[in-house]
Amino acid sequence: MKKVCIVMGSDSDLSVMEAAIKRLDAFGVPYEVRVISAHRTPLAAEALAKNAREEGFGVIIAAAGKAAHLGGVIAAYTTLPVIGVPIKTSMMGGLDSLLSMVQMPKGIPVACVAVDGADNAAILAVQMLAVEDSVLVDRLTQFKADMANEVSAKDEKIRAQFAAKE
Amino acid sequence: MKKVCIVMGSDSDLSVMEAAIKRLDAFGVPYEVRVISAHRTPLAAEALAKNAREEGFGVIIAAAGKAAHLGGVIAAYTTLPVIGVPIKTSMMGGLDSLLSMVQMPKGIPVACVAVDGADNAAILAVQMLAVEDSVLVDRLTQFKADMANEVSAKDEKIRAQFAAKE
Amino acid sequence: MKKVCIVMGSDSDLSVMEAAIKRLDAFGVPYEVRVISAHRTPLAAEALAKNAREEGFGVIIAAAGKAAHLGGVIAAYTTLPVIGVPIKTSMMGGLDSLLSMVQMPKGIPVACVAVDGADNAAILAVQMLAVEDSVLVDRLTQFKADMANEVSAKDEKIRAQFAAKE
Amino acid sequence: MKKVCIVMGSDSDLSVMEAAIKRLDAFGVPYEVRVISAHRTPLAAEALAKNAREEGFGVIIAAAGKAAHLGGVIAAYTTLPVIGVPIKTSMMGGLDSLLSMVQMPKGIPVACVAVDGADNAAILAVQMLAVEDSVLVDRLTQFKADMANEVSAKDEKIRAQFAAKE
Amino acid sequence: MKKVCIVMGSDSDLSVMEAAIKRLDAFGVPYEVRVISAHRTPLAAEALAKNAREEGFGVIIAAAGKAAHLGGVIAAYTTLPVIGVPIKTSMMGGLDSLLSMVQMPKGIPVACVAVDGADNAAILAVQMLAVEDSVLVDRLTQFKADMANEVSAKDEKIRAQFAAKE
Amino acid sequence: MKKVCIVMGSDSDLSVMEAAIKRLDAFGVPYEVRVISAHRTPLAAEALAKNAREEGFGVIIAAAGKAAHLGGVIAAYTTLPVIGVPIKTSMMGGLDSLLSMVQMPKGIPVACVAVDGADNAAILAVQMLAVEDSVLVDRLTQFKADMANEVSAKDEKIRAQFAAKE
Amino acid sequence: MKKVCIVMGSDSDLSVMEAAIKRLDAFGVPYEVRVISAHRTPLAAEALAKNAREEGFGVIIAAAGKAAHLGGVIAAYTTLPVIGVPIKTSMMGGLDSLLSMVQMPKGIPVACVAVDGADNAAILAVQMLAVEDSVLVDRLTQFKADMANEVSAKDEKIRAQFAAKE
Amino acid sequence: MKKVCIVMGSDSDLSVMEAAIKRLDAFGVPYEVRVISAHRTPLAAEALAKNAREEGFGVIIAAAGKAAHLGGVIAAYTTLPVIGVPIKTSMMGGLDSLLSMVQMPKGIPVACVAVDGADNAAILAVQMLAVEDSVLVDRLTQFKADMANEVSAKDEKIRAQFAAKE
Repeated sequence: MKKVCIVMGSDSDLSVMEAAIKRLDAFGVPYEVRVISAHRTPLAAEALAKNAREEGFGVIIAAAGKAAHLGGVIAAYTTLPVIGVPIKTSMMGGLDSLLSMVQMPKGIPVACVAVDGADNAAILAVQMLAVEDSVLVDRLTQFKADMANEVSAKDEKIRAQFAAKE
Repeated sequence: MKKVCIVMGSDSDLSVMEAAIKRLDAFGVPYEVRVISAHRTPLAAEALAKNAREEGFGVIIAAAGKAAHLGGVIAAYTTLPVIGVPIKTSMMGGLDSLLSMVQMPKGIPVACVAVDGADNAAILAVQMLAVEDSVLVDRLTQFKADMANEVSAKDEKIRAQFAAKE
Repeated sequence: MKKVCIVMGSDSDLSVMEAAIKRLDAFGVPYEVRVISAHRTPLAAEALAKNAREEGFGVIIAAAGKAAHLGGVIAAYTTLPVIGVPIKTSMMGGLDSLLSMVQMPKGIPVACVAVDGADNAAILAVQMLAVEDSVLVDRLTQFKADMANEVSAKDEKIRAQFAAKE
Repeated sequence: MKKVCIVMGSDSDLSVMEAAIKRLDAFGVPYEVRVISAHRTPLAAEALAKNAREEGFGVIIAAAGKAAHLGGVIAAYTTLPVIGVPIKTSMMGGLDSLLSMVQMPKGIPVACVAVDGADNAAILAVQMLAVEDSVLVDRLTQFKADMANEVSAKDEKIRAQFAAKE
Repeated sequence: MKKVCIVMGSDSDLSVMEAAIKRLDAFGVPYEVRVISAHRTPLAAEALAKNAREEGFGVIIAAAGKAAHLGGVIAAYTTLPVIGVPIKTSMMGGLDSLLSMVQMPKGIPVACVAVDGADNAAILAVQMLAVEDSVLVDRLTQFKADMANEVSAKDEKIRAQFAAKE
Repeated sequence: MKKVCIVMGSDSDLSVMEAAIKRLDAFGVPYEVRVISAHRTPLAAEALAKNAREEGFGVIIAAAGKAAHLGGVIAAYTTLPVIGVPIKTSMMGGLDSLLSMVQMPKGIPVACVAVDGADNAAILAVQMLAVEDSVLVDRLTQFKADMANEVSAKDEKIRAQFAAKE
Repeated sequence: MKKVCIVMGSDSDLSVMEAAIKRLDAFGVPYEVRVISAHRTPLAAEALAKNAREEGFGVIIAAAGKAAHLGGVIAAYTTLPVIGVPIKTSMMGGLDSLLSMVQMPKGIPVACVAVDGADNAAILAVQMLAVEDSVLVDRLTQFKADMANEVSAKDEKIRAQFAAKE
Repeated sequence: MKKVCIVMGSDSDLSVMEAAIKRLDAFGVPYEVRVISAHRTPLAAEALAKNAREEGFGVIIAAAGKAAHLGGVIAAYTTLPVIGVPIKTSMMGGLDSLLSMVQMPKGIPVACVAVDGADNAAILAVQMLAVEDSVLVDRLTQFKADMANEVSAKDEKIRAQFAAKE
């Protein structure tokens, strides 16, 4: 199975990105975790991106905040799909990170998820790997069913709680 | 090869989405084009999403504007990766479409590209299909090289133009 | 009397929506409370919306945050009026939830109230039910008078407090 | 049948509000159209709001732009549901109008629709009047079916157009 | 001397508006403090505005948050200058209050100060009253000098502190 | 009677500010019109502000766009009330101009009107001059009545137009 | 004298950047003009940045729009000061470009000017080169005086025009 | 070596600006620290700006919040490069400060860094002084290498931590 590369612009992003790591663990998808700065270690970003496919990666998840260039810088050097996770900042709740990631110019897409959307980034990565992998499709189907059941259980509980009061 | 499904919320989005269609044509990737409204034809959205994988689709591209729910509504019913294209509006240039698409809650990701980013949506779709397809990887590599050459040619021209004036 | 259906996208919205529940209690309007996710339990949303009128509901209040599709998804399947409560987020104080709810495309309205405006959503629901119900009209009239009296009492108090200082 | 009152803050809003007028005509719902400024003719706003219910109105639609107080000023004097239509401005596409209308404080709701959402305001008004009117329910059901058919027809056409090219 | 009327939409605004009260005290300008809601006690707002000039007021300061209509509603019924203080909210730090106050339509101005700018509202009120009052001009001149001295003292201190380190 | 000083940061603002000039003409209030840049002719701004009161000015209106410092720079050097007119720009419709003007720090207020609100700035200036001038009060009262009549006439016309159609 | 390097992300930015070119011409400062894409020709960006100082450049001006990474990508590879020009877009007038450029993380600054601020970028570049160059200081002083004179002339003209009308 | 002048609009900005002071200390660049308000001590701002070059300053860093005019006011009186540090506020995380600083009109640039970007302002100042100073270039090169090493060390650590888990 192809691996997922989780890259974050700063080790302070780890608390957010742990949700992605846990999700990949739950799906049994192998991954690597890296700290690479688009601006402070640009050559590491370049090296990672250039070699990612032949090192067995299928998807790259890039998390960064503020002027969040990491996703774009990596996407510049690879043809693998790159998922961007804009990290929340104090500038309008991360609008700076979001716009810096999602508004990529023509030719070099970054697949952006919600601000601090680490969990969804991992699920999206699994969906990409599942395009040709029926085992992962089954796991995704099960995951969707589990989520639905969890919400349904809460629905039952709250419905009952207020039905009594009605 | 898996097909790409391009769905738009209104036929008025076609002028934007034609860039995606042309790009898929250029990559030789098969596709279908649909007009489905998350709110006016929700059952069509549901049907499309539920059957997409078995009908041979690998990726779904959903384009919508304003309260752009189409991507989320489709993602609710499928485990295929869904790419969202927020369509430009007069509300701050499409910030409504963008936030409605990208800020998906936990569990159901939509891979968002730039406002009106139809071309990038198609490239991203190809990148996803290319994870296990070396022919598409080669085409993506060539595409990247072509883009670089095009920019380099412009660089040469403008550099020379102003070198003369310098 | 028709019932009000209060649906929230996550049980974490309950702390906000309790204000709506209390207000309906105060008006003596019957209601049900549900937890339904537009994305995780879309079929429950569809079922609720399709059957709401015949199950005796007159209005549906839908509360959700971020890419808040719940109101729109429900409105897609019913002709009952749907009131949307955008839940506050860290993205500019809920601008994502607000725009996702209020910017509904032509044909499928959602009646949006303020961010976290659960109390007002309930009052609005009562106003809708009161269109043909003179008892509710009387209660609304009394409610308005009570509010006015409460503000007037505060006005008297603060006016006196600073008149002494004047 | 209860009437709908369409009030606009300026006669320059008429070009937007004509969509509401046409929609009410199509539904066979009676209405009046007024030009009342919350700031220039506040007494007219007060008079309209105070007498609306006894003059046979069931819903009031208020359209205004910029610091759009009209909805709130009318809602202050009536217990009828008030629907607000924020008119587009050059300030971020009408964000000023939208926030001035939707962010109503506790106790006095305004049911806000999208910027320039005149058509949806009318549909919402019909939905409110339909709570106790099965004829209107039938018309709303038919309207929903017509919309779905219209979208489906476009879907068929575009699907076929690109199937040929596929 | 003409009085200043400080009106706030809710008694919860008092903690912010105390800065205005203190400033007027410091300038020896008489004032009244009121709690009046544009939406819950609209008749009180109307009465205050209509009678303000003949009751000896020269300026009205109106503070309100969210859909902050208070300034506009008062300005509708008086020819006195009305100063608006937008109260901070969780919606982008009070952008809703600010736009609701400052974007007044043609004909009915509200003189808007910064979000939570109670102190400046009071100074502005004094400046207006000082147009024909040389005693107040002298106090304003002294106030400006005091502010300058205060800043200069801080400048001296910090300059010295870091000069030592330099 | 005190004069009004209309200062604009660029002569390109004249097309907007002509509304203020016409309004002052209509009220019979004397004025001067200046082009002074806070950044290109700061000494002229300083000189104007320092001498304004003794040269017979009662109010200063400052219009500027983008990083609109003109109001603040003038307010720094005078105790006269300064009205700011933020000029519309392409940056979110003038949000840059608005925030640069309205968010003045403690101690130095600028009375901000709407983006491009030249007319209202003039009316506000007249209101300030009218605090001690009963002739101007009468003109303002008449102006308010004229506006109301104008709106009422439009109300009659549109009401009749659609009553016929009703 | 050190040269200025003007780099733009796309040749479509040339119409904006010509103002910078003309300004450098006017100051007699040598320059080169390049078209380099941070994402499409990243190696060219890297090469330019790495060699810029030894090739005689003193400052780099980088212009780009949308997710405007060019300034940051160049700054990553050089210790020369990098000036960023955010290019106007339809996303809130270029807020995406602005935030992508100005919100650079710790350690790698980009000196950002206004949206489309090409002229100011050139002036800023000259100011940087002038730190140790008294000839350029004289030209800047003259430039400032010329600007002041130009504004003063307009002031005289408009002042006279309306003095006649006064 | 030329000195850097760090000016802040209020002594409350010192906690943010200490990062700039420390960074200049680390680079061995001399500096002065001032508290000057564009609005409360405008003459001090003017004096500082006019004399800065002859007093041996090479760059001025101006930090201010809200309607942050300080950078522009200083730039109006000097030909030295002025770096602006927008201070974070509660208005959308400092968007008011940022736009007030960065959107400078033609002719008078301010080199803006990120909100609260004091550290980067200092680095940028050093880069400007280094244009003609090879010792500073060496220190900047070393600084860049140190940053890269620091990030690389974190990368090694986190990579290893999760490799074990993989």
